[in-house]
Amino acid sequence: MAGVQDHRLAVAVSNAGGLGSLPGAMLSLDVLKAELTQLSAKTDKNYNVNFFCHTPPLFSEAREATWRTALKPFYDELGLDLNNIPSGPGRTPFTHETADVLEAFRPPVVSFHFGLPAADLLARVRGWGSKIISSATTLQEALWLESQGVDAVIAQGLEAGGHRGHFLDHDLTHQMGTFALLPHIVQAVKIPVIAAGGIADAAGVKAALALGAAAVQVGTAYLLCDEATTSPVHRAALKSANARHTALTNLFTGRPARGIVNRLMRELSEGGGAISSKAPEFPLATGAIAPLRAAAEKAGSGDFSPLWSGQNATGCREIGAAALTLSLGMR
Amino acid sequence: MAGVQDHRLAVAVSNAGGLGSLPGAMLSLDVLKAELTQLSAKTDKNYNVNFFCHTPPLFSEAREATWRTALKPFYDELGLDLNNIPSGPGRTPFTHETADVLEAFRPPVVSFHFGLPAADLLARVRGWGSKIISSATTLQEALWLESQGVDAVIAQGLEAGGHRGHFLDHDLTHQMGTFALLPHIVQAVKIPVIAAGGIADAAGVKAALALGAAAVQVGTAYLLCDEATTSPVHRAALKSANARHTALTNLFTGRPARGIVNRLMRELSEGGGAISSKAPEFPLATGAIAPLRAAAEKAGSGDFSPLWSGQNATGCREIGAAALTLSLGMR
Repeated sequence: MAGVQDHRLAVAVSNAGGLGSLPGAMLSLDVLKAELTQLSAKTDKNYNVNFFCHTPPLFSEAREATWRTALKPFYDELGLDLNNIPSGPGRTPFTHETADVLEAFRPPVVSFHFGLPAADLLARVRGWGSKIISSATTLQEALWLESQGVDAVIAQGLEAGGHRGHFLDHDLTHQMGTFALLPHIVQAVKIPVIAAGGIADAAGVKAALALGAAAVQVGTAYLLCDEATTSPVHRAALKSANARHTALTNLFTGRPARGIVNRLMRELSEGGGAISSKAPEFPLATGAIAPLRAAAEKAGSGDFSPLWSGQNATGCREIGAAALTLSLGMR
Repeated sequence: MAGVQDHRLAVAVSNAGGLGSLPGAMLSLDVLKAELTQLSAKTDKNYNVNFFCHTPPLFSEAREATWRTALKPFYDELGLDLNNIPSGPGRTPFTHETADVLEAFRPPVVSFHFGLPAADLLARVRGWGSKIISSATTLQEALWLESQGVDAVIAQGLEAGGHRGHFLDHDLTHQMGTFALLPHIVQAVKIPVIAAGGIADAAGVKAALALGAAAVQVGTAYLLCDEATTSPVHRAALKSANARHTALTNLFTGRPARGIVNRLMRELSEGGGAISSKAPEFPLATGAIAPLRAAAEKAGSGDFSPLWSGQNATGCREIGAAALTLSLGMR
């Protein structure tokens, strides 16, 4: 859960018997190393480190200009300067440099989103003994991941919060709800299937196991935990009735991700959902959004913040992550 | 499941211990009476009769012209005459005339889609002792239905096949997958909740019960049953890999419904999914589609047929409906 947690949440979850996860996609190599140092020192249980593995896009002046034109009314309203956008943390893919940092820690599990890194890079990770998992949003993706030798596959149902992990095709009508995707994948692969999407409490865990999952991935429910670094506007949204209205949007990063519907999504969406043809390729949309987000958040508003959430935020609790993990009843 | 079954499927399900359902929305009053006569004679168990309760739209010459213009290339290709469209069975809402037929049978359960009929009409049904159920696609709809005194509410998750039942608002981003919708409704209402959407087999039933459902509604899995009147092209699609790709479309009737993606959906969709602004209001789209469908089906093609299916067709079996019902493991 890049952007809303660091090693502390992962430590609490692992020490409580779950598989805590450190999101690496938004960390510089120095910070990644520091976080892994903390994480590995504070738990002797298994943990996971997650990375994106997209192909960085070529920057397009034309697309960026279109994007900035779309955002200009908001910049004007907030008194911001479109010609003065600082570079901020993007979303970097997993590279050999990342692997250099990781190698010293040999994390028990390394997971990927948006497919898998190149074969030589994957071989390095496998070579030092990490188990490898990745997300599938369709049956085809699950079969492809299995053919690449992953140790387990995450069936990411359409209810899930944050970025959709699709990588073989980008037609969103191929994406299925957990109740449909999970049985398709469980029936087709031999490796363990981890269910994700809409699982928020012990009842959800039990349901996923009934559908054949070997384990579950729970994200949204942890967003209000003491150890999460979820922002105040994000926490407020999760606790409000607004949390019941999420949509897939590409407006914050350039790729479809599920978040609570807010002003940016309402005002820049085209047709159904909150997908816009004006957003540049992932992750380039983030640049021009950052100043809007910062200015709005300073004023206590989440109008321009990615309020990532799955469709089921009913499991969010303002408690420690260990207590939440134990409440899920896997152990 | 209007259009793909008659009393025979309902009889088989009820006699096997499920709640068989007769779809009334596409039946003339005479046929409805004949079907109820058969159904009530062939089972002494509980059964359900289902009706739509939409407000019939005003016919618009302009919208019909737009629709026919959109369909003209297909009419030309199949050698059909756009000026010679026969009137066929539409989708009639539940009226006092329907209630007059129903009253003689006092069905144990009457269910509605698209909300509920007017209060006086609902009072008649309640007055002769039928239990009343209806579908909710959002928490708000479930609370509204409970406030109207329904005996149980169906939580229709986004995976479900056929028509979405939404009636309080038409923003499709409010629709949730079963894993998210079901817990929201279970936690909020006191009446029994029936889970629908993606439930295809005993594992799905177990999962829905784990999430707090009192019962489940299974549709798609019955479409290949011996007693279903599912057309040959529809059966072929359900048995093919195409069944894994469904989308919501308003092209066949005017309201969003989930079906297997076929040529009409691919070629007339706008943006994501298969929703078109050119289709007239429900159920007026059906008129001009019917000749295309008939001509294509005669040639063995489902290009213009509504191939209704949920996202999870893995439970479809070419067996008797009694055996399928028993395999679901509710009893």
